[in-house]
Amino acid sequence: MMIQERIAGLRKYMAQYGLEQVLMGNPININYFTKMGARRSDRATFLYVTQTEAKILVNDVIGYTTLEGMDVAFHTDGDNVCEAIAKHTIHDKPLAVDGEYPAKWLIPLRDFNAATDYILGDRAINLQRAHKDAEEQQLLREASQMNDRVMKRVRTEVFHDGITEMEASRAISKMFVEEGADMPGWCIVAFAEGSADVHHHPGNARLKEGDTVLIDMGSPRKGYHSDMTRTFFWKKVSDRQREIYDLVLRANLAGEAAVQPGARCCDVDAAARDLISEPGYGRYFTHRLGHYIGLELHDPGDIIGGNTDPVEPGMAFSCEPGVYLPGEFGVRVEDLVIVKADGTAEILNHDSKELEILGL
Amino acid sequence: MMIQERIAGLRKYMAQYGLEQVLMGNPININYFTKMGARRSDRATFLYVTQTEAKILVNDVIGYTTLEGMDVAFHTDGDNVCEAIAKHTIHDKPLAVDGEYPAKWLIPLRDFNAATDYILGDRAINLQRAHKDAEEQQLLREASQMNDRVMKRVRTEVFHDGITEMEASRAISKMFVEEGADMPGWCIVAFAEGSADVHHHPGNARLKEGDTVLIDMGSPRKGYHSDMTRTFFWKKVSDRQREIYDLVLRANLAGEAAVQPGARCCDVDAAARDLISEPGYGRYFTHRLGHYIGLELHDPGDIIGGNTDPVEPGMAFSCEPGVYLPGEFGVRVEDLVIVKADGTAEILNHDSKELEILGL
Repeated sequence: MMIQERIAGLRKYMAQYGLEQVLMGNPININYFTKMGARRSDRATFLYVTQTEAKILVNDVIGYTTLEGMDVAFHTDGDNVCEAIAKHTIHDKPLAVDGEYPAKWLIPLRDFNAATDYILGDRAINLQRAHKDAEEQQLLREASQMNDRVMKRVRTEVFHDGITEMEASRAISKMFVEEGADMPGWCIVAFAEGSADVHHHPGNARLKEGDTVLIDMGSPRKGYHSDMTRTFFWKKVSDRQREIYDLVLRANLAGEAAVQPGARCCDVDAAARDLISEPGYGRYFTHRLGHYIGLELHDPGDIIGGNTDPVEPGMAFSCEPGVYLPGEFGVRVEDLVIVKADGTAEILNHDSKELEILGL
Repeated sequence: MMIQERIAGLRKYMAQYGLEQVLMGNPININYFTKMGARRSDRATFLYVTQTEAKILVNDVIGYTTLEGMDVAFHTDGDNVCEAIAKHTIHDKPLAVDGEYPAKWLIPLRDFNAATDYILGDRAINLQRAHKDAEEQQLLREASQMNDRVMKRVRTEVFHDGITEMEASRAISKMFVEEGADMPGWCIVAFAEGSADVHHHPGNARLKEGDTVLIDMGSPRKGYHSDMTRTFFWKKVSDRQREIYDLVLRANLAGEAAVQPGARCCDVDAAARDLISEPGYGRYFTHRLGHYIGLELHDPGDIIGGNTDPVEPGMAFSCEPGVYLPGEFGVRVEDLVIVKADGTAEILNHDSKELEILGL
């Protein structure tokens, strides 16, 4: 049932963007629309959708069986995959593929006159995926509740003077499995000047009094991702740390409050960014405000200056402003949100964002 | 040094196939040629190679620093990635991309006149990757030695009456870490009629006397993969099991012996396949004889009927014939081989292939 509704949603966006036929090769897209458990493989699986057809094209070695409401067509090892695809496409129309669709199964389609042109169908596919249905919203909530449980434990069970970032990261990673994650979590732990590095790799830096402690972590649960950042201070906090923390927290809250009926993604980014730019820290906020999230940690789509798409009910994304002062420290505060039916934000993380000094 | 030799090898194949410019987006290719640790990400990294240039194009948020012998050009969040690429390409020549290169960064290149046409460069890239250098050969040997150590333990430490496939698979998976793997191993365990399913998912079937026990397993070590299959019998073996085992083992040995100067990949496949077809079991050998292996479990390239490429020194692949009798049982015997300087096969697995009855 859910599958049919997702396909129907895709067809609506296909019509809106004038796409007559869409071919997907990204297993994440295929699984979103079919729940068939496709995997990235040199043995190909595709999902082909028109206004009247929904067909899975799959290597028979994968051993796949029929899905309700979908046609299935098989090819086998040694077949030319593009020739097999061209048997199903409408040859006198353009064919839209998904963004991750690989060149090896795209460029040779021309040799079999599969279509008049090859264009991107991401706009339609990604808009459908961006609007989470009730089942997905609940899975995202549960994943973030898990992330909250881990962050609560992080405060008391992990840190002590002299622990390294790597040791802390490993300890946190394991907690995810205990709290119901699909796998050990990923976890950026950055101390002191390391926290000024946006994509810091946890290393051998040891925790000491006065350090900023930035923790960005998550893990999927039942296939849906979580992602949260908190920034703490170890044993004491300076006025400058407090000032930056306060600024970033206000930017986080401003971004979340900017989720309103009629707002665009770029407006949400601007609401947080303007607040940081006003006292002159804009150039230290070096990345987008957030990214969509769901079956992927970074679902296609960003909360960023250039994205004029409206923020609509069902959309799920991160709100993660940061200020990174090279050689000093960095602060990032990140929650996930879902846009509610009334157009405002449901904050999925309930973990406290008040400034906290740990180790007291 | 190794990096420069790999780029030089690529340029040789580029010249051979008339490719003037190659653009890679697959992190595995990029890491093979640069060792820079690129990862699949919505923040793009590319490697661009001509006869005179080797240039990394990377999102500056990734925080990448200069590599010896390579130019580096940055783009940033919000930049149009295809516009950034087009600043570096030769606009009046075709541009060859790698097979996994995603459509989202390929189709829009046309809008920036990045090249006259877009073609596949896999032939050149994959031939270079297929010929393993001394460092890679040693890493493959060590990975298969690890796999041998695990298989030795499998014989005595895992099975007992009533154990399920899933339990056995989990127990084996853990051994890989103990034996030096990069991560827990993957392991297909199939009992009885389950072994007739080529891509069996270990389930709740319980081991009982007379069962065929098929084990296909491996894990990467230092980034290079291992892959081996052995088929055992539990407590007793029937004449029919013995007959099929003997046939498959002889096919495995015939495939390995067919690795000779002048042989083509399809000849190696045929040597094993003909032996199975002769007594009428050809239709139960439903897959290719093998696949290339290295940085990927399935490196691009197969030992299969259609592949007329010569088998050349440095190439590494699996030799894994099987016979699968639906509703009865299946047998597969798989080793990895490297083609030696003299054109014959070095067998990387030293684990015994004689018929074995376990549990006695």
